[in-house]
Amino acid sequence: MDCLRPEFKDELRKIVGDGNLKDGEALSSIDHGVAPENLGAGVVVLPRTTGEVSAVVKCCVANGVPLVTHGGRTGLVGGAMSRPGELVLSTARLDRILHVSSVERVAVVEAGVTLQALQAAASEHRLETGIDLPSRGSATIGGMASTNAGGIAAFRHGVMRHRILGLEVVLADGSIYSDLTRVVKNAAGYDLKHLFVGAEGTLGIITRVAVKLEPQPLANATVLFGLPSVDAALETVRRGLDAKYGQLRAAEAIWNGYFRLTSGHHRWSVTDYSADHPVNLLVSLGGAEEEALQSELGRIYEDLVEDHPDASAVIASSVAQEADLWRLREDTDLIYRKHPGAPSYDVSVPLSEIGTYLDRCLAGLKEVDATFDPFVFGHLADGNLHIVLNAAGREVPGEKARAVETVLYRDIAVIGGSFSAEHGIGLKRVESLSAISNPVKVALMRRVKDALDASAILNPGKVLRAGKREASL
Amino acid sequence: MDCLRPEFKDELRKIVGDGNLKDGEALSSIDHGVAPENLGAGVVVLPRTTGEVSAVVKCCVANGVPLVTHGGRTGLVGGAMSRPGELVLSTARLDRILHVSSVERVAVVEAGVTLQALQAAASEHRLETGIDLPSRGSATIGGMASTNAGGIAAFRHGVMRHRILGLEVVLADGSIYSDLTRVVKNAAGYDLKHLFVGAEGTLGIITRVAVKLEPQPLANATVLFGLPSVDAALETVRRGLDAKYGQLRAAEAIWNGYFRLTSGHHRWSVTDYSADHPVNLLVSLGGAEEEALQSELGRIYEDLVEDHPDASAVIASSVAQEADLWRLREDTDLIYRKHPGAPSYDVSVPLSEIGTYLDRCLAGLKEVDATFDPFVFGHLADGNLHIVLNAAGREVPGEKARAVETVLYRDIAVIGGSFSAEHGIGLKRVESLSAISNPVKVALMRRVKDALDASAILNPGKVLRAGKREASL
Repeated sequence: MDCLRPEFKDELRKIVGDGNLKDGEALSSIDHGVAPENLGAGVVVLPRTTGEVSAVVKCCVANGVPLVTHGGRTGLVGGAMSRPGELVLSTARLDRILHVSSVERVAVVEAGVTLQALQAAASEHRLETGIDLPSRGSATIGGMASTNAGGIAAFRHGVMRHRILGLEVVLADGSIYSDLTRVVKNAAGYDLKHLFVGAEGTLGIITRVAVKLEPQPLANATVLFGLPSVDAALETVRRGLDAKYGQLRAAEAIWNGYFRLTSGHHRWSVTDYSADHPVNLLVSLGGAEEEALQSELGRIYEDLVEDHPDASAVIASSVAQEADLWRLREDTDLIYRKHPGAPSYDVSVPLSEIGTYLDRCLAGLKEVDATFDPFVFGHLADGNLHIVLNAAGREVPGEKARAVETVLYRDIAVIGGSFSAEHGIGLKRVESLSAISNPVKVALMRRVKDALDASAILNPGKVLRAGKREASL
Repeated sequence: MDCLRPEFKDELRKIVGDGNLKDGEALSSIDHGVAPENLGAGVVVLPRTTGEVSAVVKCCVANGVPLVTHGGRTGLVGGAMSRPGELVLSTARLDRILHVSSVERVAVVEAGVTLQALQAAASEHRLETGIDLPSRGSATIGGMASTNAGGIAAFRHGVMRHRILGLEVVLADGSIYSDLTRVVKNAAGYDLKHLFVGAEGTLGIITRVAVKLEPQPLANATVLFGLPSVDAALETVRRGLDAKYGQLRAAEAIWNGYFRLTSGHHRWSVTDYSADHPVNLLVSLGGAEEEALQSELGRIYEDLVEDHPDASAVIASSVAQEADLWRLREDTDLIYRKHPGAPSYDVSVPLSEIGTYLDRCLAGLKEVDATFDPFVFGHLADGNLHIVLNAAGREVPGEKARAVETVLYRDIAVIGGSFSAEHGIGLKRVESLSAISNPVKVALMRRVKDALDASAILNPGKVLRAGKREASL
């Protein structure tokens, strides 16, 4: 049951049309995504245009109703959760691709367009998005902008923030910030669109996005390297970046524990490739000719083996073999099947610190619980590590969970990393943000929030603790 | 003569040391850069540490003295100009390179380090900055961050904003915002460092910067193409991006008028290359082997000539020839020698709009003054055009200058471009910003300025008109 006044809902129906306000039984037509709590508000409004979004916001301000904006509901930190008394604004009907240009290598889309839909449209022009995520079928461009999504190509093409050329945003008073430039170079005043990127819907509602696209390579080649250490893996990344032919497209590291899990489950085994390498590194090159790319991977391996005689390599020789290799990295579901609700962490570590950081964390976690031996994998070329405990969520209650966070987060700012690399803050990391960040930064965030959302109407309690105004709502 | 109180200057001397406050005759030891008005304040303070910067700011707040921060003083829009009653803070002594890592491909530097100094340090690790400017010997990393500098590689590596991983900033109250991450992926709350990038010293004083570096290619090859049209030049850019071997590093366009000026002056001529091509395009590829890169350029030309039989090409076969080709693009001084103070414009245009935009502008300028036939050149792969009038500054007074701006800027936002691509707003473009930008954006800029600099102490009157508080100082 929602607790919004019927008159308010009637006003909303007038704005978006009767069928586009979902409550009561009609709510069942809407997928709640990763968590049922996303639909906790019990009412979802689905505007079709920026004008309708603006009218909805004005109506919310007039009625003092907070708004939670939804994209694909694939976020992992509760940024889309909603409570009774709030209104969910879904961007699902803002689903038009407005412009794709092969000359400009730019697309302009409405916020609700999925990554997959944009990838398909770009592909018709031999272009790609330069950013890719496993949740591509649900994740929306607006949501990816709001959360500053990352993925596997960030070392080369940047994160979502670096892909965005222009934004249109409905502000907290319903006014429309229109800054839909389609150019990389823009020094015309404060670039305020970067306030909305990564703000998780707390500063404005993104309605349109202009994004950079990249030329699609004609061919790819993929190899799995078995390596003795993080240092050897980092050397291999550099060899990939320095490839004499082709360009590095991915460098995904799989530490031993997770590798044994996925390779064991999928019964993946190849002669001369042991499952016992401390680190495995999946490397993809893109370029014009597949055979030349495969030769280049072979050359990189030959150079590598001179320094590390124990290194192994498997070069995929078919699309099916390539898919098998990627599955070793991407089948994270296996962890959660074994350890339901396993606590997972998402940190960025400067590359030269990764080895020391992991050694320290693994030892620290053992001190918290001698059975802890986490699964570790991640985007090695940009230092983004995913660390998932080998324990079900219920086995890691309050105090123990805090001890784990202390181990993983304590020094992360000091060494120049980030305790939340690509998953954001949402609801789940609000306390950690306050505890870990530079206090001047947190105070400034609060000042910006107050300056942009004086009525505290936008996604209250997310990213920042609810302020006085929000708590009193 | 400055008009700061002697007691205030004594306070400053206590903070930075006697010799590091320059006024009166001592001021002559300081180069004013592009304009004498930069030193209009008559007093320059040179702190050596972030702590000293913080103390200077607190002292200014206590005494109600506005601060103008200086980097290399190479800006073209008056962002560094200062007036009596203000204090210039120079970052010249914040000149330490704190960290360069070949594994991380990251550097951390103090704000006053020049681009050239960083390039030299990076080069020792076979790395490059991914951004380059003709003013590299003077331009500082702090200044480039403050102005969101661009240059020739932005289509590939982004502008300064995209290169910055972390910042340390002294805020308007003297507190220190410390966010010196060295990682690409960081979704830990609002990414407020982007407020300071491109704010031209009006929101904070940048003291340290962590920047991404890129692997340096082993070899380069350069070609000059003579082409029949903008469309043919854009096709060539795409062929460069799709190169079967190597990677596109530059695609600089030189329209006919400017080409005749530079090639004529330097007596550059090559058999079979006419000076009459409507557009010339300087293309560089980087990669492992020079010969293979030159062959690739040859292949691109062969493909090109099938569609455009009149196209010409000159491939540089020595370092000297390459320098000759670059001089045809970079010797902009020739324009100003012929037309002192020639009004110059710096716009970003979405690539698919460039042809139409230029045709309309050239016709519009002829209507303003039938003798106008501007020099046009720019960074074609990112749509950044530099347009310089063939008239001395004094020949284009008030009303005529406004008519020129109307022609060049009128529709630029509508077509998704920017009226200030890489030079910023400073003092000279403040009125244009208000006139051209989305009013919601300008109002929001004002709100952000007021939230971050309540005492209006930082570079007043730049980027935004002086607010009430500033005007009353």
